[in-house]
Amino acid sequence: MSDTTATTFPVLSVLDPLEFSMQQVEKILACQVDGWRSPLEAALANLISCGGKRMRPMICLLVGNMLGAESNPLLHMAAAVEMLHTATLVHDDLVDGSALRRGIRTLNSRWPAAATVLAGDYAFTQAARLVLGTGCMPAIDLFTATMSCMVAGELAHLTQQGDLPGQEAYFNWIRAKTASLFELAAGAAAMLRPVDAGSVWAARLFGEKIGMAFQIVDDVLDFTSHPNELGKPVGHDLATGVLTLPALLYLEAHPADPDLHAITCGEKLPGPALDHLLARICTSGTLAASLDMARTFIREGLKAADTFPESPERSALEALAWSVVERKK
Amino acid sequence: MSDTTATTFPVLSVLDPLEFSMQQVEKILACQVDGWRSPLEAALANLISCGGKRMRPMICLLVGNMLGAESNPLLHMAAAVEMLHTATLVHDDLVDGSALRRGIRTLNSRWPAAATVLAGDYAFTQAARLVLGTGCMPAIDLFTATMSCMVAGELAHLTQQGDLPGQEAYFNWIRAKTASLFELAAGAAAMLRPVDAGSVWAARLFGEKIGMAFQIVDDVLDFTSHPNELGKPVGHDLATGVLTLPALLYLEAHPADPDLHAITCGEKLPGPALDHLLARICTSGTLAASLDMARTFIREGLKAADTFPESPERSALEALAWSVVERKK
Repeated sequence: MSDTTATTFPVLSVLDPLEFSMQQVEKILACQVDGWRSPLEAALANLISCGGKRMRPMICLLVGNMLGAESNPLLHMAAAVEMLHTATLVHDDLVDGSALRRGIRTLNSRWPAAATVLAGDYAFTQAARLVLGTGCMPAIDLFTATMSCMVAGELAHLTQQGDLPGQEAYFNWIRAKTASLFELAAGAAAMLRPVDAGSVWAARLFGEKIGMAFQIVDDVLDFTSHPNELGKPVGHDLATGVLTLPALLYLEAHPADPDLHAITCGEKLPGPALDHLLARICTSGTLAASLDMARTFIREGLKAADTFPESPERSALEALAWSVVERKK
Repeated sequence: MSDTTATTFPVLSVLDPLEFSMQQVEKILACQVDGWRSPLEAALANLISCGGKRMRPMICLLVGNMLGAESNPLLHMAAAVEMLHTATLVHDDLVDGSALRRGIRTLNSRWPAAATVLAGDYAFTQAARLVLGTGCMPAIDLFTATMSCMVAGELAHLTQQGDLPGQEAYFNWIRAKTASLFELAAGAAAMLRPVDAGSVWAARLFGEKIGMAFQIVDDVLDFTSHPNELGKPVGHDLATGVLTLPALLYLEAHPADPDLHAITCGEKLPGPALDHLLARICTSGTLAASLDMARTFIREGLKAADTFPESPERSALEALAWSVVERKK
């Protein structure tokens, strides 16, 4: 990938053919936010150019290329998906009170909430403009349904806090906030040309399953990664009272753990107690169990991909899918 | 209008034929937000059902009916415009720190910023789904461009605070935040059937000009209205350092006024000093001058409407336009 985008992941030779297309996606993204106009737009442009993993646009490009989508709508769809991802990051960081993202300070830690809200809104509207650029009504419909699903999921999660946490609520939450966007990336790409409904269904299912795995791995990395690698503090979820899969599995096995019980009651643990709890979870085997669940999702995604035509893109999608559970940051 | 919607304005007999359509718009709006699902959605549903003036959907319906748009897409377009308006209200109240809206407490005064952000996002996405329901690509394009324009305008206004205020910046701001939505209401309605580009242009211009007048009158009412009528505190703009047209005209005539100068420097005036400044502005003649400017915009809007076909709807649009400067709340 281009080194100007600080793309951090994944380094897979099967993805090399995507380099030129991804550079075009970067250019389209950069054009949407004019960093010269205001300091806030500059901060948003910086967040976009800091890259992240670009998983979603890569999946979009691979599925579209595999099924023969036209280049221009596909590039716009890939950029739209990444811009929508950026918009949700901005508002989610505000909602979560996060201070670091992609190794740089979040917008909400540098600007008043008001400015952050508007910056996120701006990214949302630019994403909508990009998807309109595809001119493909089913893809536009799916895009809007995805936006709605993501926001409704976050809203449900926010108002559920305080309820007894469980796996079902967790899976619903990550399906809404993460898997739906992966489903959009793959599904909308399949919609860009008049292919059979089966391809669209398979692409959406593939995207959704990989997205579920991606989020589970993200949640595991919050326990295990080094802050420098992760670009944000380790243990942040637990410290802010958010119970992800490893903590939920630990809770099922140790329902009487007083510290985790305190967190479920909305209490904030002092630093040393939090560190001990993190250590207990890390040595309990629930991280490995979570990764096993992620692998199950990957296998389900690959089963859906079995119906894709044999092609270099399909091989790249398969490699990309497995890289999701192998990544360290 | 239906009394279940608490529509407060305007009471014009020429609008009576709209009653049934407006009831359908209310039903479409109510379906978008399921108040039973969470307390936050209930609060959003309450904000929508409290009505406000419904100026934008009424203009949309009148223009569409006048030009022969199909009923179903038109009703969805009218609901989309009102939903987009609601979404911007939620985020704007958060940005402005407002405590009251339509006589009820704002979402941001009852919920954490995070919840308010998501509630606004949700309204945005529901608006986008409604506009997609029209199936009309040019209207969808204009809708997205309007969202972008509104957010960019607020962003520019936010980052300009501290600059020396002037009429040009004020007019740019209200064009972005208010007139663009009126332009959408009228323009998108004209796009719903294959009419000549001239009708679309005239409808957009009509909407924009009425919207400019509407915002100026809103800003004048912030100085003159009674809190019970306005549904929010009087003098709120000035108290929060926002200089609208009456204050800007007063500043041009009295550049040395120390209290207004203090506000332009970002200072917060004590209550009695603010009351005296409000009284000085109210007796300076700039409120009448502002209303004169609003009337000029109305006349420009009506000039654009001259090209509309003679019809009951055109008469209603003209009456609605004049009612904008005659309203007391």
